[in-house]
Amino acid sequence: MAAADPPPTPVRFGIIGCANIARKVSRAILLSPNSTIVAIGSRSLEKAAAYAKNNGFPASAKAYGSYDAVLEDPDVDAVYIPLPTSLHLHWAVLAARKKKHVLLEKPVALSVGELDEILAACESSGVQYMDATMWMHHPRTAEMKAFLSDERRFGELKAVHSIFSYNPGADFLNTDIRVKPDLDALGALGDTGWYCIRAILWAADYQLPKTVTALRDAEFNEAGVILSCGASLCFEDGKIATFYCSFLSNLTMEISVLGANGYLRVHDFVIPFQESVGAFYVNAGTKFAELSIGIEPSPTEQLVKTDLPQEARMVKEFSSLVRKVIDHGSETEKKWPTISRKTQLVVDAVKASIDKDFQPIDVVY
Amino acid sequence: MAAADPPPTPVRFGIIGCANIARKVSRAILLSPNSTIVAIGSRSLEKAAAYAKNNGFPASAKAYGSYDAVLEDPDVDAVYIPLPTSLHLHWAVLAARKKKHVLLEKPVALSVGELDEILAACESSGVQYMDATMWMHHPRTAEMKAFLSDERRFGELKAVHSIFSYNPGADFLNTDIRVKPDLDALGALGDTGWYCIRAILWAADYQLPKTVTALRDAEFNEAGVILSCGASLCFEDGKIATFYCSFLSNLTMEISVLGANGYLRVHDFVIPFQESVGAFYVNAGTKFAELSIGIEPSPTEQLVKTDLPQEARMVKEFSSLVRKVIDHGSETEKKWPTISRKTQLVVDAVKASIDKDFQPIDVVY
Repeated sequence: MAAADPPPTPVRFGIIGCANIARKVSRAILLSPNSTIVAIGSRSLEKAAAYAKNNGFPASAKAYGSYDAVLEDPDVDAVYIPLPTSLHLHWAVLAARKKKHVLLEKPVALSVGELDEILAACESSGVQYMDATMWMHHPRTAEMKAFLSDERRFGELKAVHSIFSYNPGADFLNTDIRVKPDLDALGALGDTGWYCIRAILWAADYQLPKTVTALRDAEFNEAGVILSCGASLCFEDGKIATFYCSFLSNLTMEISVLGANGYLRVHDFVIPFQESVGAFYVNAGTKFAELSIGIEPSPTEQLVKTDLPQEARMVKEFSSLVRKVIDHGSETEKKWPTISRKTQLVVDAVKASIDKDFQPIDVVY
Repeated sequence: MAAADPPPTPVRFGIIGCANIARKVSRAILLSPNSTIVAIGSRSLEKAAAYAKNNGFPASAKAYGSYDAVLEDPDVDAVYIPLPTSLHLHWAVLAARKKKHVLLEKPVALSVGELDEILAACESSGVQYMDATMWMHHPRTAEMKAFLSDERRFGELKAVHSIFSYNPGADFLNTDIRVKPDLDALGALGDTGWYCIRAILWAADYQLPKTVTALRDAEFNEAGVILSCGASLCFEDGKIATFYCSFLSNLTMEISVLGANGYLRVHDFVIPFQESVGAFYVNAGTKFAELSIGIEPSPTEQLVKTDLPQEARMVKEFSSLVRKVIDHGSETEKKWPTISRKTQLVVDAVKASIDKDFQPIDVVY
């Protein structure tokens, strides 16, 4: 857009539910230059109103005592849905049918079958779908990908390992929606494993693994919800990926990517330690020094500044796609539903492997 | 030792073979204050003499045209054996029978059965055994262990991942002893996987895994020698460990250790990037900051200086144990053969899993 162009008409968001994560995304919607919040719905009108007030919503934003009211509001272009996963199928499908574009919190569904219904509804209504995987939108992610795509410096992808864990403590493990079988039955796999799986697929240019095998020591709460698990992913071409996700281990957010000629690591891939700049570390063409004392060259730190927090860049990208559909009748961008579906497929395969005594599960798109 | 004590009588080493790695260890023997080199044997006298000359051996050091001659030399207290793995059984057993203390390059044997013969010979002769896993002796390793043992800052061990890979190129993959089935049949598993497995056992206080399962994408050369593989290790108490070792990926040397309350990572565990100081990184009690933007507290870098290169500290420790046996008739230190045997047991289990179509293998001590 040239400097003389008028500012874009903001995409008008409705927020479905008052989840804690919605506070962060609401801020992002307000930070992004092409979006605003026009409505929030909760099962309680008071709660919705208080939420709007406490989170700096525009004074004009409407508070509703139901989710339906947000979907019925003709001023709402798009919805952000941070509800428990078991409610996604109903509300995302309904939102799409009401012609609202859908920014859906992850894990997006309890199974790929559910997600397919959501995606079909979005496709049928011509609305944009995107999952709220924020780190995809940090400029660091594109710079890391450029390194991984560098045939000379990185070469063939050989192995990926990812970790996302946090340890929210005993209260969470008994009471949080993320460990309730009727709300977020995928537990730590859905909440944190989602990111690890996305990271692996991202590193592999979204090539799907051939088979997925859960590691033999998953942990569960009394209701059978996964609190901690890991898996190995095997690919047709011989590369190896492993991940570990958990609600029982200290907050850790790692990707390690090994190529024939290079290595990349990032220690805060889900949420950067600092909001305005993200670091990653690369080695390329590394050799042992004389007498195998030390290495050459040394690894380097790469710093990538961002103009907006990654979640605001996510909203900006989503809103830009929404505007193209609204203003120009453009096709929706298929990249986002496609990678969301692939991520969910692998989540499902890990779950199936755990349920089938850690047998390898074939992944079929 | 008080300042007034005389310097220790040096342990007199004989070197068996002219391997490249012996150059580094020879330097270490000369750097360590309680050891010296008195002999080197090669199948070629000229080669032995040239090696001694080119590597700064004392002028008094004897060059021999056979390994046997080193073992027959009464001036030799201890031998360092850097021969190809397939020769370890013969020469380490013979060295022990000749009452020479044994510093044995890794991988120590082709199987735990072979290692048991070596250890039995050392035990029977009352000579000290140690494998040449240098990083065990860096003061950083003890400081890292102190963090992992800190109940408050680290807590229960939950997951370990380790990588050791290097990419020596096509010539190596065709010609090096480390990929010859008659010399180092364990390939990358023996050469680099050894370190990963040791790292996992070290983190787990040498508790053995219950089962070991190789990842389904090992790579081999035409002779069937492992060029790249990985495995998952499952423990009785539910912790998870994975590793990846390779001759096909860029030089990378990682340990990631996750506890309930803390996290430790080190990026140069096998060979520190700098000889005089080693870094590692810890997080403890890490929480998401307000709005899940960033984390608190930030990870910290820990720097550990070392008075001697880690390989010289290894020689010093070994020599100190040898002196106790020689001077005071002390018992040999059993820690070193014990952890060597445990490492070899897991190496064997990974190999067995690969050979048995990636089935889980029970580990029995």
